[in-house]
Amino acid sequence: MGNQPPSTWSDRFESPLHPAIARFNASIGFDIELIEYDLTGSMAHAKMLGHQGIISASEAEQLVTGLEQIRQEYRTGYFQPGIDAEDVHFAVERRLTEIVGDVGKKLHTARSRNDQVGTDTRLYLRSQIQDISQQLQQWQQVLLDIASHHVETLIPGYTHLQRAQPVSLAHHLMAYFQMAQRDKQRLQEVYARTNISPLGCGALAGTTFRIDRHYSAELLGFQDVYANSLDGVSDRDFAIEFLCSASLILMHLSRLSEEVILWASEEFGFVKLKDSCATGSSIMPQKKNPDVPELVRGKTGRVFGHLQGMLVMMKGLPLAYNKDLQEDKEALFDAVKTVKACLEAMTILLQEGLEFNQPRLAAAVASDFSNATDVADYLAAKGVPFREAYNLVGKAVKTSIAANKLLKDLTIQEWQEIHPAISDDIYQAIAPQQVVSARNSFGGTGFEQVRLALENARSQI
Amino acid sequence: MGNQPPSTWSDRFESPLHPAIARFNASIGFDIELIEYDLTGSMAHAKMLGHQGIISASEAEQLVTGLEQIRQEYRTGYFQPGIDAEDVHFAVERRLTEIVGDVGKKLHTARSRNDQVGTDTRLYLRSQIQDISQQLQQWQQVLLDIASHHVETLIPGYTHLQRAQPVSLAHHLMAYFQMAQRDKQRLQEVYARTNISPLGCGALAGTTFRIDRHYSAELLGFQDVYANSLDGVSDRDFAIEFLCSASLILMHLSRLSEEVILWASEEFGFVKLKDSCATGSSIMPQKKNPDVPELVRGKTGRVFGHLQGMLVMMKGLPLAYNKDLQEDKEALFDAVKTVKACLEAMTILLQEGLEFNQPRLAAAVASDFSNATDVADYLAAKGVPFREAYNLVGKAVKTSIAANKLLKDLTIQEWQEIHPAISDDIYQAIAPQQVVSARNSFGGTGFEQVRLALENARSQI
Amino acid sequence: MGNQPPSTWSDRFESPLHPAIARFNASIGFDIELIEYDLTGSMAHAKMLGHQGIISASEAEQLVTGLEQIRQEYRTGYFQPGIDAEDVHFAVERRLTEIVGDVGKKLHTARSRNDQVGTDTRLYLRSQIQDISQQLQQWQQVLLDIASHHVETLIPGYTHLQRAQPVSLAHHLMAYFQMAQRDKQRLQEVYARTNISPLGCGALAGTTFRIDRHYSAELLGFQDVYANSLDGVSDRDFAIEFLCSASLILMHLSRLSEEVILWASEEFGFVKLKDSCATGSSIMPQKKNPDVPELVRGKTGRVFGHLQGMLVMMKGLPLAYNKDLQEDKEALFDAVKTVKACLEAMTILLQEGLEFNQPRLAAAVASDFSNATDVADYLAAKGVPFREAYNLVGKAVKTSIAANKLLKDLTIQEWQEIHPAISDDIYQAIAPQQVVSARNSFGGTGFEQVRLALENARSQI
Amino acid sequence: MGNQPPSTWSDRFESPLHPAIARFNASIGFDIELIEYDLTGSMAHAKMLGHQGIISASEAEQLVTGLEQIRQEYRTGYFQPGIDAEDVHFAVERRLTEIVGDVGKKLHTARSRNDQVGTDTRLYLRSQIQDISQQLQQWQQVLLDIASHHVETLIPGYTHLQRAQPVSLAHHLMAYFQMAQRDKQRLQEVYARTNISPLGCGALAGTTFRIDRHYSAELLGFQDVYANSLDGVSDRDFAIEFLCSASLILMHLSRLSEEVILWASEEFGFVKLKDSCATGSSIMPQKKNPDVPELVRGKTGRVFGHLQGMLVMMKGLPLAYNKDLQEDKEALFDAVKTVKACLEAMTILLQEGLEFNQPRLAAAVASDFSNATDVADYLAAKGVPFREAYNLVGKAVKTSIAANKLLKDLTIQEWQEIHPAISDDIYQAIAPQQVVSARNSFGGTGFEQVRLALENARSQI
Repeated sequence: MGNQPPSTWSDRFESPLHPAIARFNASIGFDIELIEYDLTGSMAHAKMLGHQGIISASEAEQLVTGLEQIRQEYRTGYFQPGIDAEDVHFAVERRLTEIVGDVGKKLHTARSRNDQVGTDTRLYLRSQIQDISQQLQQWQQVLLDIASHHVETLIPGYTHLQRAQPVSLAHHLMAYFQMAQRDKQRLQEVYARTNISPLGCGALAGTTFRIDRHYSAELLGFQDVYANSLDGVSDRDFAIEFLCSASLILMHLSRLSEEVILWASEEFGFVKLKDSCATGSSIMPQKKNPDVPELVRGKTGRVFGHLQGMLVMMKGLPLAYNKDLQEDKEALFDAVKTVKACLEAMTILLQEGLEFNQPRLAAAVASDFSNATDVADYLAAKGVPFREAYNLVGKAVKTSIAANKLLKDLTIQEWQEIHPAISDDIYQAIAPQQVVSARNSFGGTGFEQVRLALENARSQI
Repeated sequence: MGNQPPSTWSDRFESPLHPAIARFNASIGFDIELIEYDLTGSMAHAKMLGHQGIISASEAEQLVTGLEQIRQEYRTGYFQPGIDAEDVHFAVERRLTEIVGDVGKKLHTARSRNDQVGTDTRLYLRSQIQDISQQLQQWQQVLLDIASHHVETLIPGYTHLQRAQPVSLAHHLMAYFQMAQRDKQRLQEVYARTNISPLGCGALAGTTFRIDRHYSAELLGFQDVYANSLDGVSDRDFAIEFLCSASLILMHLSRLSEEVILWASEEFGFVKLKDSCATGSSIMPQKKNPDVPELVRGKTGRVFGHLQGMLVMMKGLPLAYNKDLQEDKEALFDAVKTVKACLEAMTILLQEGLEFNQPRLAAAVASDFSNATDVADYLAAKGVPFREAYNLVGKAVKTSIAANKLLKDLTIQEWQEIHPAISDDIYQAIAPQQVVSARNSFGGTGFEQVRLALENARSQI
Repeated sequence: MGNQPPSTWSDRFESPLHPAIARFNASIGFDIELIEYDLTGSMAHAKMLGHQGIISASEAEQLVTGLEQIRQEYRTGYFQPGIDAEDVHFAVERRLTEIVGDVGKKLHTARSRNDQVGTDTRLYLRSQIQDISQQLQQWQQVLLDIASHHVETLIPGYTHLQRAQPVSLAHHLMAYFQMAQRDKQRLQEVYARTNISPLGCGALAGTTFRIDRHYSAELLGFQDVYANSLDGVSDRDFAIEFLCSASLILMHLSRLSEEVILWASEEFGFVKLKDSCATGSSIMPQKKNPDVPELVRGKTGRVFGHLQGMLVMMKGLPLAYNKDLQEDKEALFDAVKTVKACLEAMTILLQEGLEFNQPRLAAAVASDFSNATDVADYLAAKGVPFREAYNLVGKAVKTSIAANKLLKDLTIQEWQEIHPAISDDIYQAIAPQQVVSARNSFGGTGFEQVRLALENARSQI
Repeated sequence: MGNQPPSTWSDRFESPLHPAIARFNASIGFDIELIEYDLTGSMAHAKMLGHQGIISASEAEQLVTGLEQIRQEYRTGYFQPGIDAEDVHFAVERRLTEIVGDVGKKLHTARSRNDQVGTDTRLYLRSQIQDISQQLQQWQQVLLDIASHHVETLIPGYTHLQRAQPVSLAHHLMAYFQMAQRDKQRLQEVYARTNISPLGCGALAGTTFRIDRHYSAELLGFQDVYANSLDGVSDRDFAIEFLCSASLILMHLSRLSEEVILWASEEFGFVKLKDSCATGSSIMPQKKNPDVPELVRGKTGRVFGHLQGMLVMMKGLPLAYNKDLQEDKEALFDAVKTVKACLEAMTILLQEGLEFNQPRLAAAVASDFSNATDVADYLAAKGVPFREAYNLVGKAVKTSIAANKLLKDLTIQEWQEIHPAISDDIYQAIAPQQVVSARNSFGGTGFEQVRLALENARSQI
């Protein structure tokens, strides 16, 4: 932009920008990402101008044809705006005027950079939201597929990372399905608030031209138009909401990432990482590292940071547009890329990068005290008040640990010393498969419930 | 808790907690806020246990009566759980057993602390969301009332805090109405995801008792039940979503706060602060400070901080419940209080603390170049390509500033030197009232549009 | 404050504050925490006024005596300022005037609320910083004590949570010692920037009275005075820096917390939690949960949130003091309490709540491939280029896994097939004790180095 | 990396990475920024290996020469590692082996990626810290230069954005000098903790080779070496501390930005933006926008976000290195670039983009009640207790406003009605020049103090 023609701004300006300041202000380095959306938006605007008779039908056509040509030039690499263009919008307007001549100067009638950029950003984001929703759907499909194979595979269930009660592996994975379900729902709500047209809000106050904002909105597939022009040019709620939704997606992935990292450890040994989704060490030849979930977990902070950054940017800004808002783009673009990359990587990891070690899982659920609640429930079902039953079992666990035994190893005599109501059926009640199966309350891990949940899930995606 | 009975936990435990650790773990200092919701939740649970025959009808009735008594005792100040109760839930259960005897020990059948706390928190938050929505409604009503009186009051419209185009004061205020409209919409979406019952998810895996989760959910007014028990006890999305919505509310208020602070300055002088909503200085006798909007602006960071804190808390936690989740409460409670206090204070400030200085506003819009776009539009409407018109007017502004004149001070000869198409009607076209009136595009500041917008707004609240 | 005397502010004000606004503005609910510091600061100010002849020596004495009396009244519970006092400073000034009469009204000569609050906050924080530094010292002492007993206890060392190379448990713990060492260093740097007096900066511009700021600073033990009055009343860098240091302390504790949680899991089993530092479950009688490290990990987000909140609060504030700054206190107070509580709890946990399971640790380091690097180093030491050696060992690991063997189980023939340079001394080279011992580079885990490190550490605290 | 040779990792791996996973893991897209530091670090490592006899002197020389060649190839654009290199370190090692043959495979002896990357990052950051410190110095020089010309230029001083007391413009600007002084001090402290060598910490545990970490550290200009290898490879405190220091720099700049934006508004009119540092509007020909301070203010959120992101990344990571840490780089690089760009832009803006409007400033300080404190001080100096004087003046202000007068317009009779102690010298006491001059306390705005402050400042830079 050092050699920009003095005419970027009006002739009010006498001297050009300081080159370093021009570099500092320029957004072309990143807003080129918006070019296709900018062209689409400008075409709709030109058509509306023609439709309303603000420019002639033939002028409108010339503008649209010229913009279409720029799209081709961009796709084929012929049009590559450089740093001397301040932003992608000026670059397009300038190229358009080269192509179609003076009529190009009419494109910006009844429009301002403020509503134009707002339009582009919303077109961009709504497209990305649909892509991400699609990815979430695939992610759910993969979870569902794996879950379908593991209804009766047991895995220890944890609270406080202490073994609590064994659960169906399918049940465990379906918790993430539910999180993704909320993620999708949230994204659709953000979509609805993103898919509103600010075009025609002008710089801040609307315009004196007899435009038809609903017409251009309809051409662009927007569901509605902003009802207040000051709000229309200065609202970034949709971007912040998206970043919050993105943060939640990453937060969910970070939880599963943590679990995969644990499962892949020597100590847990619940999964084996396949070579295609693991990496080694530069000096330790034995290493096979779960880089994917680690990176996903690490990238969580990045997206949280963008959310915070955008909120900070908006804090305390007076109406209407302020240049600070230019900072919305890089955060948004990077968050979109991060979410997409993480969803892709985790989907691949689950789909083809992990192998559950079933013997190890089976051994795990058979070798701990995670059936203790079932003894308490057993007693409560026989009329012992729950708190009392709970205390009795607590004592039994303590004694067993001291004797280096598990509950299943207690003799019937030992059981009856704990409480006379206990009979032979206790062994059946505390076998892992039964422990899981018995939790047949709605949403619970009982096999019947899990099968029902899988069926419901299938109908949801 | 130093002197806690060893029986807080099961008899697996031999020695009591270290007193400092007990203090560190205890949540009674803040979760007492949940007591009414805890009682309500427990009553529903007791009724469900009775309904399902897990306990007898008479036992259920005793439990409900006992819980009702605790509610009265709490309200009258008789029941005041101290620091020796670990949390509000234990405190209630203990008192219940004192009141109803051993049957009290049956209350926790088929329930865990994890689903219980989750239920309480959702009952609390959904109630708070409705309160805040109500406050937003009142806030909108006040904005609407003031706007209704100021359709034809003009105020400079700004971009980059530079005067851009004059706008209707009603139009300016209604931008905040629109933000509040989105805030309400978002809260209702969060409400829908908050109003789902985790009760019956047990510790993590459901329960072996034949409970009816839909029954207790219905008693509590929940719209649905969690479909996956692991998800049900470890999901805090609703809290984070609320904090994001709260952050947006505060962000919006911070923008208006900034404006009020500017408007109340000597330099702007657009509003006068009334004594009832302003404070003085401890040493400068002339001072009248806009403390309310400053504090609101300052509290914005506090809510953003809670949002971040909660996201950080959830990052990387394996399923299902982890004690980290206990940290959700104070952040949530403080955010709720902050949002409510800020909405209340800003509503009072707008309603009775500000007086717009109309002569000063009128003078402001008549003494600048904010009608320059209208000259460009005027020329464009006469067929001059917009970019050319824009440059001509830029030059005219420059010349005028040098001559210490405004555009309205130019003679018709001077206008025609700028462009021969300009005729006498230019003076009318650039008068502030006309400049505003002419922006009659949908959502624009033209008076007709503003009146339409007010009408629509009235029908929305 | 509804019934506040109209004289809180100057007689410029005619009508009292709206009660809700008074509540909103009031800080007495939290700034009471500063009362002792406020009294100390006011005494120094009064002495300075007397010393400079701005008030008489006898007046100064009366003020000091009155303030001393308030301190006693506060400590004995007689003086308990309620919500009707706007802030602790007004409360003190009012009580002072009750005690000493009209001379009390002279206390605020040559001082403003802005420099007064700034002084109090710095006195508070510098005291807290010293407390926390002391706690860090104790924390280090406990780490050092435990480490001293475990120089030759081996524990798997991890990267990517995959077993990498075994290390000395002492070495592992001493990593946290080093983090705490930096934490202490940082706190001392923050201390130096906190320990600077803003007293006498006035409202923003200094004062017309012939005060001696260095005199009052010296009385208060400040190292220096602010060089610029505008900066002095509006600087909160020290608070933000403290919050960053606090965030780093919590981040470090969160890492060890994560490790303790892992170690206490059934799968790792490296430590046993003692009853005094663990809690149970409300329904699972067998549970023993590591609540302390979980809560510490969870509280990390809380402190990060305060850091962000304070940064947000300061963003974009024009000079000098703005009411937003009142929001610094609650964040600071809560962060201080959180850091102190977490350090206390973790110190107790390490000191008396954990027992390392040495047989399990010994078994762990003997049963994996974490000695693979040593084979590569062995070969490299015999002249095989490192990258080649690395690949050979990688292949050996793969073959061994397939054969369900560890490296120590390979026969000498098998070794020599891998590389002919390998001889009998390989078995010695890959024994865990030797593997650790051999990493004798400075700062490494070799026993000799660890002993040296312990010695250095002892001399540092 | 899709076509990466299978030998990136050890021969433990059979199948290549999934191409999408390879892309996801690859850091070459950003860590190329470290190449020069990587080469420098590797040369020092090679020299140390030679010096210690771990490789021969001639081998060390070959490695150094090869690395030097790569540096030339990179600088001339011949060596451009593409996406098929996983990271810059592999790219360099591979190229080195192409150049020097098999001896290249010895470079990585006694080193791991973990200590290597840590070394590179510290070399990078310490260099950037020095650059930024230099920029801060220039920034201070510009502030000092402007201040030197404006000791007796008065500007309203504000608290709560209400005019409080007039101050010297120099005094106002020097507040920012003081902030920068702290910024520099903090950076030097971060520098000291950054300038410590992790080289030789190996993967996590040190190495079996007889390396000399102090030797390589000395070659690289490090002040010290990490005392604990686990800490050395997993510590990112220095990066977080830098981000906190960067956040404070941006926060300070955001405050001045806000002020410049206010000053450049029509309403304040305290400064005129020069064309070289302002931009226009795409449709409003009269606009001259303060883009630079707006962008700086907006970028504040970006850096706060990076700080948060990095803290989140580190939260709860077990020792030692985890792949999450790879996420440190982009945040760090972007923060460095942002701080440098903002400092550069603001320095240019102050130096050549702003012109203070002195007549307007002079008019401003003569037309308000910001001399009210001086009347109170005047009375207090005559023995009226401060609180009483304060109230009298408050009343006088109220009466004057009602009469549409300023204090300077009161007659001597009116003054004496306020208090009989007031005599003719009151007019002198409340003239702006005197009001400022009289605040001659240390650090105050009195001209004598400001000149002293400028002198001290000059000696500090």
